[in-house]
Amino acid sequence: MKKIKVAIVGYGNIGKYALEALERTSDMECAGIVRRNGSAEGFPELAGKKVVSDIKELGDVDVAILATPSRKVCENAQKYLAMGINTVDSFDIHTDVVELRSTLDPLAKSSGAVSIISAGWDPGSDSVVRALLSALEPVGETYTNFGPGRSMGHTVVVKSKAGVKDALSLTLPAGKGVHDRLVYVVLEDGADFAEVEKAIKTDPYFAHDKTEVKAVPSIDPYNSMMHGVNIVRDGESGCTAGQHVDFNMRINNPALTGQVLVGVARASVKQKPGCYTMIEIPVIDLLEGEREDLIRKLV
Amino acid sequence: MKKIKVAIVGYGNIGKYALEALERTSDMECAGIVRRNGSAEGFPELAGKKVVSDIKELGDVDVAILATPSRKVCENAQKYLAMGINTVDSFDIHTDVVELRSTLDPLAKSSGAVSIISAGWDPGSDSVVRALLSALEPVGETYTNFGPGRSMGHTVVVKSKAGVKDALSLTLPAGKGVHDRLVYVVLEDGADFAEVEKAIKTDPYFAHDKTEVKAVPSIDPYNSMMHGVNIVRDGESGCTAGQHVDFNMRINNPALTGQVLVGVARASVKQKPGCYTMIEIPVIDLLEGEREDLIRKLV
Repeated sequence: MKKIKVAIVGYGNIGKYALEALERTSDMECAGIVRRNGSAEGFPELAGKKVVSDIKELGDVDVAILATPSRKVCENAQKYLAMGINTVDSFDIHTDVVELRSTLDPLAKSSGAVSIISAGWDPGSDSVVRALLSALEPVGETYTNFGPGRSMGHTVVVKSKAGVKDALSLTLPAGKGVHDRLVYVVLEDGADFAEVEKAIKTDPYFAHDKTEVKAVPSIDPYNSMMHGVNIVRDGESGCTAGQHVDFNMRINNPALTGQVLVGVARASVKQKPGCYTMIEIPVIDLLEGEREDLIRKLV
Repeated sequence: MKKIKVAIVGYGNIGKYALEALERTSDMECAGIVRRNGSAEGFPELAGKKVVSDIKELGDVDVAILATPSRKVCENAQKYLAMGINTVDSFDIHTDVVELRSTLDPLAKSSGAVSIISAGWDPGSDSVVRALLSALEPVGETYTNFGPGRSMGHTVVVKSKAGVKDALSLTLPAGKGVHDRLVYVVLEDGADFAEVEKAIKTDPYFAHDKTEVKAVPSIDPYNSMMHGVNIVRDGESGCTAGQHVDFNMRINNPALTGQVLVGVARASVKQKPGCYTMIEIPVIDLLEGEREDLIRKLV
């Protein structure tokens, strides 16, 4: 059987973990890595892999895993879709998902390619869970409680403040979809902690959450890739109240994102041309194996 | 917009709850109830509904919800699919799902209809969870822990024993996919408890599980429709071990089954002709509403 040829675009944390997940499949293969500088230098694990600056140098590619920042996803996806290459990404700006889908869908259709967007764990597999929970209890309330774990977005905001040399913002679940923030800062020499603390607490990213700021000599002891989520839905099936469902994960964040991206890369070759979110594709398509074997094992 | 016309075939517990769920939708309507005797007698809630013995008396029907025992599903599905009516069921004999699918698939295709099988909560929505968990951690172990809750299959076996007037078999989760059994029996006059207990404990349905049998004057105080499940997967995403996911429900059993059946009835009109299990259809198709609204809300 012909293997699915996958290129990984970007080689940060998510790209690295996506490569590890890809290498563990039998039905897919890594066509190569696309990096701006086209160099494998500093990454011994890439020895023997093609590392290029332009995907065209990789020959036939079925799917590009866009392991680039969310703000680069649209541009990259448009470029590869126009070349007839499927794309998958973990675009995580929840409010812009529908717009991204509307932008990519006609392009994917016109070039006979498939794009699966916002396919990490949230948005991504958590979205599938939320959709399933809504199907089980059409009337009710879903709460998504994140953490404890590092928030990239909040960390970037803290790092941008004057007097901050290094930082880490943790998301702590406070229940019912409310989150507290625990911020570790390494101060620059001479910086005033009270001023830094105020700048953080009054920033719109933090102003509405209970936020604690701690000055530490180094963020290393706190800088874990572990993250988690707890999704709860209490509602009604038909007219029957008291139905409770909850879903919990405790996971290495980029490792799970990389794994989901590899799953949707596989799924992309099974869809009709167009742009999809994860709730629009059958879950079985993410999995390696023969359909009837999977049904026998999982249903 | 034209509503999806749904017939409910069989009016036991699941049929009743399916009707309640159906009546709470805006995009579907109950075309009628099919019962062997074609009578609504004894069911005041069916006043004003068409109750018939033959689905043909209902005129146009898009989907038949087969709320009949599992052993009747294949025969009924074949009959309705041949008429070009979609069917959905909660066929729950896990080992026979693939065979049922193979039987119904060509028939559905040849008559341009859709069948969604084994669509309750297990098999059904739990199958979707197991498939998703396998996608998140392709290497690992999944444990499905049921209960506490009533097992219909085990209850039927106990009721068949000599000296048993009434019975109830509860499934108790013992962890790691192992289940204990708690059996309440109402003895017939003169029956010997020790003999009944032995007959139960040596039956193949119970012989491999830790089983406790209790004689009670009535099963009423224990006869709850509540059930539950805990699905756990510990495994690896890519090469990263220590990934933990778990899913938990505490639910009214027939109410959830009825709700899932209504969801897949809706989904059936969105699939291409053929026979599907729930892991083969996009979760979004179960939901009422416009696609982009659902994506905005759930992704």
